[in-house]
Amino acid sequence: MEEISPGLENVYIKYTELTYIDGQKGIMRYRGYDINDLAEKSSFEKVSYLMLYGKFPDDSELKDFKKRINDHLVLDNYLKDILKSLPERSDSLGILQTLLSARASEESNYKYTKENDREKIPEILGSILSMVANIYRAKSGNNIIDPEPGENYAETFLKACFGSVDKDRVKAMDSALILYMDHEIPASTTAALVTASTLSDMYSSLASAIAALRGPLHGGAAEGAYRQFLEIGTPDNVDKWFSENILNGKRRLVGFGHRVYRTYDPRLKTFKKYADILSTTEEQKNILEIAKKLEENGVKAFGSKGIYTNTDFYSGMVFNAIGFPVDMFTTLFGLSRISGILAHITEYVETQERLIRPRAIYRGPGERKYPE
Amino acid sequence: MEEISPGLENVYIKYTELTYIDGQKGIMRYRGYDINDLAEKSSFEKVSYLMLYGKFPDDSELKDFKKRINDHLVLDNYLKDILKSLPERSDSLGILQTLLSARASEESNYKYTKENDREKIPEILGSILSMVANIYRAKSGNNIIDPEPGENYAETFLKACFGSVDKDRVKAMDSALILYMDHEIPASTTAALVTASTLSDMYSSLASAIAALRGPLHGGAAEGAYRQFLEIGTPDNVDKWFSENILNGKRRLVGFGHRVYRTYDPRLKTFKKYADILSTTEEQKNILEIAKKLEENGVKAFGSKGIYTNTDFYSGMVFNAIGFPVDMFTTLFGLSRISGILAHITEYVETQERLIRPRAIYRGPGERKYPE
Repeated sequence: MEEISPGLENVYIKYTELTYIDGQKGIMRYRGYDINDLAEKSSFEKVSYLMLYGKFPDDSELKDFKKRINDHLVLDNYLKDILKSLPERSDSLGILQTLLSARASEESNYKYTKENDREKIPEILGSILSMVANIYRAKSGNNIIDPEPGENYAETFLKACFGSVDKDRVKAMDSALILYMDHEIPASTTAALVTASTLSDMYSSLASAIAALRGPLHGGAAEGAYRQFLEIGTPDNVDKWFSENILNGKRRLVGFGHRVYRTYDPRLKTFKKYADILSTTEEQKNILEIAKKLEENGVKAFGSKGIYTNTDFYSGMVFNAIGFPVDMFTTLFGLSRISGILAHITEYVETQERLIRPRAIYRGPGERKYPE
Repeated sequence: MEEISPGLENVYIKYTELTYIDGQKGIMRYRGYDINDLAEKSSFEKVSYLMLYGKFPDDSELKDFKKRINDHLVLDNYLKDILKSLPERSDSLGILQTLLSARASEESNYKYTKENDREKIPEILGSILSMVANIYRAKSGNNIIDPEPGENYAETFLKACFGSVDKDRVKAMDSALILYMDHEIPASTTAALVTASTLSDMYSSLASAIAALRGPLHGGAAEGAYRQFLEIGTPDNVDKWFSENILNGKRRLVGFGHRVYRTYDPRLKTFKKYADILSTTEEQKNILEIAKKLEENGVKAFGSKGIYTNTDFYSGMVFNAIGFPVDMFTTLFGLSRISGILAHITEYVETQERLIRPRAIYRGPGERKYPE
């Protein structure tokens, strides 16, 4: 008798050479390299290249990769029109899903080949940078622009959003893009793989991933953690809030615990560092102090059960200190995740391609006559 | 040692009371009722209700269900603007994915509850009817309109597309909507389930499904079969074309064979009937004759291997005889599939909800030092 696999939890859908996670020891590596090392010493472009092509680029490969990304920073006019058409109440991530879908609707004559898919990757990275920057601009009441290439992807992106930006913020953004780039195959990456397995185009596959990222069980933790700090309001209020809301089991502590980690999320280290460096206003220092006090409470209460702070606890603070409002946090997570998802798509389709088509076990009524 | 499950082929992702398929005997039933019986004797609204709520509606439930669908035939202006903004080269299905995503971007404050999801269903069925009808109108150079409620869903839809329509075509469209409504969990439905399992809103889940349907390994068979008939051109050319292209293994016969059937696709019977009834012009009769001769060739060559005609072989002819161009076939398939996918989403989330999060088996490099 067959049984169902709830949530596909013990089902292995693919082999991967991309991300290694040891949840007991709190280790996470991309292709063998420690995640915090990469976030400190590398760049989004180099790590994306590593994920996509299995090796770091040499100087001329890196130059070429950057150029091909920068060649696609200009959005077609119809995408700008759609961005303007969407109502103000639309959320940033939903707008990104819409723009990706609209761009996909041009790909109807797309024929999958390994080369065609590979060729598209820098184009996608360029156009998504421009989409997300302009979503931020539109949501904050600014005009839509064609981003100017900066020193690197993170700088190009932040300059397109804010006009000017300091080195610390560029480095923090670059690190965030690396830290969030991949995490094996959560629901968003799975949705992308299912779509890509039909040989649908990559824009459509990414739109599927973003649709899954929108779910509150998946992408919204950084936003949720930050809203929790805002609700608490002052460091003095932390202990009381914690015992009234969390200790008694009334609510769940957002930014704590993770399906795969039984210790601190390894990515936390770098996010926490930038939260410390960038929190300079009174408001930011206040939030940081709330977070640290809340973390102490959380680790004391739940650490013995293997429930520790995860990366979303501090990432929202970093995004906020860079200059982004809460509504953008999940969209920035989505932007960071794109090259990881593309790496999973190309890995799956090139080496293990098979239409994903699970089954269901029928338990309904037997044969019945149509009621006359 | 764990192994991967390629394509999830032997993985059972859920229990279902919706669709029963016996691929050996060529039987397909919705909740116990034979698919061709439903297509002949029932209506899209009644069968959708059966799929969604587990029983046929009584008169007042049916009236209420229809009213709630008809209350949502008017598209918001921003959706009309987006439809006008998209370039002419966009394909119909990509436009549908874009409109669903745009509509989803309004759902950012959506909180999943069983009641909220159920409440949305008639709204979704109404707005998708209007989206697809207006996609057809826009692609054929007509103005965008707010559909007027007709006798039933099929009539409302065809009147919105063509202005007027005869009874045979309404009945054929109604049957097609029923026959294509569900087919257990192909990739499109799987993508929707993955998305819905994060508690993302239903418009986003449907957008994921449409993204997967766009892949040539999934949704495009009716279009592919029809283009094959056009290429052959005349009935006289069938035998020669078949031996030059198919018998020698150079190409695959589109509209033949199916992962689950080892005999005729049961849905074929009703589609073939309407292809016979509706093919009245010289061009339509010519295509029908090509198809029948090609089917004879195919069954003779492949029937002994359990490869028979599937439903996509004749459905394109029916859609064409109703009045639709080839570019709309997969979109009509998508329209038909919506209530089946919604039934799978509600069934999964209400009874077996668990975030879908499969694993990957890491086979990449061990620990490496970052190159300085």
